[in-house]
Amino acid sequence: MTAETVALPDIVSMENVQLAGRNIASFVHRTPVISSRSLNEIVGQQLFFKCENLQKTGAFKFRGAINAISNLDKEQREKGVVTHSSGNHAGALAAAAKLFGIKAHIVMPSTSSQVKKAAVIEYGANVTECEPTLAARLAVSARVQQETGATMIPPFNHPDVIAGQATAAMEFHDQVDDLDIIVAPVGGGGLMSGTCIATRHLKPNCRVIGVEPAAVDDAFRSKQSGKIEINETTDTIADGLKTSLGELTWPYVRDIVEQVVTVSEEEIVVAMKLMFERTKMLIEPSSAVCLAAVMNSKIADVNSRQKIGIIISGGNIDLANLPW
Amino acid sequence: MTAETVALPDIVSMENVQLAGRNIASFVHRTPVISSRSLNEIVGQQLFFKCENLQKTGAFKFRGAINAISNLDKEQREKGVVTHSSGNHAGALAAAAKLFGIKAHIVMPSTSSQVKKAAVIEYGANVTECEPTLAARLAVSARVQQETGATMIPPFNHPDVIAGQATAAMEFHDQVDDLDIIVAPVGGGGLMSGTCIATRHLKPNCRVIGVEPAAVDDAFRSKQSGKIEINETTDTIADGLKTSLGELTWPYVRDIVEQVVTVSEEEIVVAMKLMFERTKMLIEPSSAVCLAAVMNSKIADVNSRQKIGIIISGGNIDLANLPW
Repeated sequence: MTAETVALPDIVSMENVQLAGRNIASFVHRTPVISSRSLNEIVGQQLFFKCENLQKTGAFKFRGAINAISNLDKEQREKGVVTHSSGNHAGALAAAAKLFGIKAHIVMPSTSSQVKKAAVIEYGANVTECEPTLAARLAVSARVQQETGATMIPPFNHPDVIAGQATAAMEFHDQVDDLDIIVAPVGGGGLMSGTCIATRHLKPNCRVIGVEPAAVDDAFRSKQSGKIEINETTDTIADGLKTSLGELTWPYVRDIVEQVVTVSEEEIVVAMKLMFERTKMLIEPSSAVCLAAVMNSKIADVNSRQKIGIIISGGNIDLANLPW
Repeated sequence: MTAETVALPDIVSMENVQLAGRNIASFVHRTPVISSRSLNEIVGQQLFFKCENLQKTGAFKFRGAINAISNLDKEQREKGVVTHSSGNHAGALAAAAKLFGIKAHIVMPSTSSQVKKAAVIEYGANVTECEPTLAARLAVSARVQQETGATMIPPFNHPDVIAGQATAAMEFHDQVDDLDIIVAPVGGGGLMSGTCIATRHLKPNCRVIGVEPAAVDDAFRSKQSGKIEINETTDTIADGLKTSLGELTWPYVRDIVEQVVTVSEEEIVVAMKLMFERTKMLIEPSSAVCLAAVMNSKIADVNSRQKIGIIISGGNIDLANLPW
């Protein structure tokens, strides 16, 4: 099956991605792409890293949040936005709302890290705590939504969020000519779907690979079974990748992502540490999965003459609890 | 006393710095300058960071090492180079020698970190261990020099090394218009001297500030007493700044550096952690001293409209022993 034989799902158009690019241009960083010769020598590959860890709020999530808010009308903006998230989407939406001068209501599980909760509060958002279950998150955020009239901006299962995340890959292809392979982590699939859309339009022959921890291999299993699978347990250091796919992101993973590969917890930690040492950049475990996949030859049919692009999704970690 | 009233010491000329720039251009990174709006908001200043932590070998030292080797003739190159260092100069000289295909002999104290020793060996250098005293380092390196005929490239007290380090500030002034203040750490004074030379020539009105840990405040005391003072103890986390000034670097600190300020160990750790969190970059404690000085208002007569340039000297740290 070659890339061209399967049509891109008709959920988010490239026009929407380009519009997102214009919507967010004055708010987001055009993040740099870096390479490390010593790292390339160690892994025996030509790697390019799109540094969304250097994005505002420390993660690509800011792109989708800004784009979603940009698309709200005046009346919607007056009532603010609401989401439930324990992680980077919470901080991104809070920061984006602050920039637009609108209210953000963030429902966070009581188990969220103090660091992340503090960041969201720093951005001026209203934080409502809930029990650390999906059911509680949905129930509490629905209640907040009803009370405030705020618009729900979900972390990935939303066309404007996907279009915003797609701008990362759109920039990446503009910054590096002719990537042979583009690799991104798969959590809920927002970044992955966006990467599929931008890549198919801009570089039809570039292979799209997804990576997730073996401990939360819902996307891997979904590709095998042909339907959305759920993670029964979420015991991984890669806290951004615990979510399962949504109905808007799954078609992209199903039809466009060539392969979803999995990496072990140990492989993630080794890759993360190597990245720190060789690039002097902080990346979060959810971003280290891609380098881990390359280092452990998880991607089929790769040779050292090919250019591999890796999206570093974020750099928000608890420095007091590094995994080594 | 204004900057213009005191003549620049006649040790390294700006022509030598420009020549060094051409010598090293194809070997070193033109490192980026970064800013962080959130960091600026926190400290209430306009900061620009020259990222020598992203330099090859993870420190500015590579500039001086490359320049010194560039200036050796054929016969000298055949016999190789020698130095004594426990830190970044060791790695820089080993890597520079490897690039030129010449032999490097590195005398390292037996207390040097395994990480640094491994890096030097990885670059193919001969490592000779010695007792961890300055006397032993000098004696052993003199013996190695005699046995091999190698040329001694000291870590800072050498005109070619100083000229090489000066290229960092030369680039910095090219990358940021009209810095009001440039701040660099002071160890042996190689980077500081180079910063003085480039800054006086390129931006005569830019103030030059040095920073060192209070625990190794030799430069601060030297400025007060008017002669080179020695550190009796070296109990600081900033392992690159334990050295005292040399006779080639002292005149620059004496005549051109407006102020040497000191910071506490706790201030260094707080600044280092803030830098990690806000810029997602790894910096070593020796580089965190400058941000610590700014955060704790150690520099006189600064206001928030002024542009402060900070040279981040390196990013080589032992990730298994972070100070928090």
